[in-house]
Amino acid sequence: MHIAMDAMGGDSAPVEVVAGAIQAVRKTEDLHITLVGDEDQVRSTLVDFLSNLAPEDRDLLESRLNILHAPHVIGMDESPVESLRRSPDSSIARAVSLVRTGDAHAVVTAGNTGAAVAATHQALGRIKGIRRPGIAVLLPTRSDHPAVVIDVGATVKCQPIHLCHFGIMGNAFARTVLNIDTPRVGLLNIGEEDEKGNELVRRTHELFKEYNLNFLGNIEGQDIFQGKCDVVVCEGFVGNVVLKVTEGMAEFVTHFVAKTMAGDDSPTGQRLMEQLQGKTDFSSYGGAILLGVNGICIIGHGRSGRNALANAIILAAKYTEARVTDRIIEGLKSTSTRNSPEALSR
Amino acid sequence: MHIAMDAMGGDSAPVEVVAGAIQAVRKTEDLHITLVGDEDQVRSTLVDFLSNLAPEDRDLLESRLNILHAPHVIGMDESPVESLRRSPDSSIARAVSLVRTGDAHAVVTAGNTGAAVAATHQALGRIKGIRRPGIAVLLPTRSDHPAVVIDVGATVKCQPIHLCHFGIMGNAFARTVLNIDTPRVGLLNIGEEDEKGNELVRRTHELFKEYNLNFLGNIEGQDIFQGKCDVVVCEGFVGNVVLKVTEGMAEFVTHFVAKTMAGDDSPTGQRLMEQLQGKTDFSSYGGAILLGVNGICIIGHGRSGRNALANAIILAAKYTEARVTDRIIEGLKSTSTRNSPEALSR
Repeated sequence: MHIAMDAMGGDSAPVEVVAGAIQAVRKTEDLHITLVGDEDQVRSTLVDFLSNLAPEDRDLLESRLNILHAPHVIGMDESPVESLRRSPDSSIARAVSLVRTGDAHAVVTAGNTGAAVAATHQALGRIKGIRRPGIAVLLPTRSDHPAVVIDVGATVKCQPIHLCHFGIMGNAFARTVLNIDTPRVGLLNIGEEDEKGNELVRRTHELFKEYNLNFLGNIEGQDIFQGKCDVVVCEGFVGNVVLKVTEGMAEFVTHFVAKTMAGDDSPTGQRLMEQLQGKTDFSSYGGAILLGVNGICIIGHGRSGRNALANAIILAAKYTEARVTDRIIEGLKSTSTRNSPEALSR
Repeated sequence: MHIAMDAMGGDSAPVEVVAGAIQAVRKTEDLHITLVGDEDQVRSTLVDFLSNLAPEDRDLLESRLNILHAPHVIGMDESPVESLRRSPDSSIARAVSLVRTGDAHAVVTAGNTGAAVAATHQALGRIKGIRRPGIAVLLPTRSDHPAVVIDVGATVKCQPIHLCHFGIMGNAFARTVLNIDTPRVGLLNIGEEDEKGNELVRRTHELFKEYNLNFLGNIEGQDIFQGKCDVVVCEGFVGNVVLKVTEGMAEFVTHFVAKTMAGDDSPTGQRLMEQLQGKTDFSSYGGAILLGVNGICIIGHGRSGRNALANAIILAAKYTEARVTDRIIEGLKSTSTRNSPEALSR
C-alpha cells in the first residue's frame, strides 16, 4: 500500500505531517508513504524525527518514507482553481499526480480543501455518471455507528441530480465502510413534511423517489445525532455549515465541562473528560473523503495534529483496501435501475 | 402589559400553555394574558389548575387570565399560507388579531412556525423599508453574552438585501436586548475569505459594506460559539439548520455526559449536570422573536413545556417594554445613511 501525502498542507505542516506519517508507518505493515513538498524542509524535519530512533528502527522507517519535491504550496486562503493553474507544481497537485500515474493508491492532505477537490477532480476525473464530487464525513450519533454526511463543501451550489448522486455515493460508502446492508438515506431539510424547504430540496425530494434507495424523506438537523438515518444528504454550503456548527458546539460543551470539572480528580470525572474528548474529537475519525472521483482522496482538518494525520493516512489505506471507488461505481449501477432517462438529465 | 397567547400551539397544548401562562402571571406584576383557543378545552384546563389554589390566589390569577374562543388549530405539519386562508379563525390568527386591534401588546405561540410568521406578517404588516421578516434566536457563546442568529426560518430563500436587513434588525436587537453599543455583525459563510461561498453570500458581503454597521465580514459555523461576533446573519434555510444542529448536538453531548456520569453523586458531578442542562437548554432563553413586523411575536419551540412557555411570555413583555420594534425602525434609519438608492433596490 502506497499513500501520497501532501507534506505542506495544514496549519502545522510539515512538522505534524511528517510526524503523522511516521506514526502511520509504525502502526501499519506494508505501508509506504511519499511525502510531497519542499524537499529541504521535509527532509530536515524527517531527519530530526528519525535521529531520535534506534538505528534498525530508523532504517526500517526510512525505507518506507520517500520524499517528492514540490516547490510550491497553495495557502489555506488562496482561490483553489486560480492557484492550481498558477502552481501546477504545488504539493497537492504533485501528490495527486502520484495517484494518477499509479505510483500511489490514495492521497491525503490537510491543506486547502477547495484546492484538494479541484486538483483531484482535474487529475483523476469524475466517476462516469456522477455529475459533481461530494465530501463525506462521519458524524457521531446515539446509535452504534456514525452517520455519513455528504456533501460538506465540495459542491457549494447544487442541483437536484447532484444531491441524488450524493445519496447514491453516501449509500455505497455506508454499505462499504459502516457495513450497513440497506442504509437509510435522509435529505436534510427544515421540516419533515414533503413540501417543506427551498426549491432545491423540494425538487430533490421528488427525484430521490426515482432511485432504488432506502430513502426516508426529509430529516432535520437534530435528527443527525439521534441516528435517525445512516446517510444525510445536503448541498455543500449547508453541509459545511453543519460540520462546523457541530465541531463548534462540541468544543463549546467540552470547554464548558472541563471548566466546571476543573479540580475534580475523581475517577468518574477523569473518565468523563477522556470519553467526552474521544466522542467529540472528530480528528479521531481521520478526516473526510472526497467521493465521486476516480481515486481515494482524504481531506483532513487544517488544524490536524500528528494523531489525526496518522489516522487520515490509515483511513486512506483502509478505504483503498475496501475498494470504495469501485463500490460507488457498482452502487451507481444498482441504484439507478429505476431511473427514467429524464431523471438523469435533470 | 397584555399578552395574547396561542393556547393551542405546541406539542403539549393546551395543558402546558395554560400552566405556563399561570406561571408567568404569578411571576410578573401587572401582566394580563388572553388565552386564545378552543374555549371548552382551555377553560376546563384552567379550572383544573386554579382549583388547586387558595381562593384569594385563584381570584387574583383569574382576573388576569382571559379566554378568547378560536374554533380551529393549525397543525404543526400543515402548510401555513393555505391553512391560514382556510382557517381565518384559527388560534394563531385570532391571537395575532388582538395585537392588531391594540387589545394585546404582543403575541406568543409554540405552534406552527410558518403559520405564526404568515399570520403576523398578514395582520401586522412589515416595518416600512424591511423587505422580509426574520426570526432571531440567541445561541450560547464562550463570551459573556449570547449571539443573535437571524434568520432561523422565516424567509427560507433570500436575496442579498434581505440578509442586509436581517443584519440591521439583528444589530438593533443586540443593542436593545444585549446592551451592546456597537454589535459586531458577521455573515455566516463556509470560509473567511471574501470570495468564499455561494453567490448569495458573496453578493451580500459586498452589499453589507454599504451600510453603517460594524460588519466583520464572513464568519464560519464554529465562530458562533466562540463569541466572534454578536449578530450572525444567514438565510432562513441555513439558520434553521444551524439552530437544529446546535440543539441536536447539545442534546447528544448532554445525554452522553449523563450516561457517563450515571451513579456519580459527587457534588461536582451533580453541579456539572445542572449547569450543563442550564447552558444547553435553549428553552431557558424563552424562544425566538420574529423581527421586521409591526409588533412583537415570540415563537417558542414546539416541544416547549410550561417553564419555557412562561419564559416566552415574560420575554414578550420584556421586549415590548424595551420597544424592540421602535428600536428596529430607528436602527433602519441610522444604518441606512450610507446607502445608495441602488443598494436598496437590489
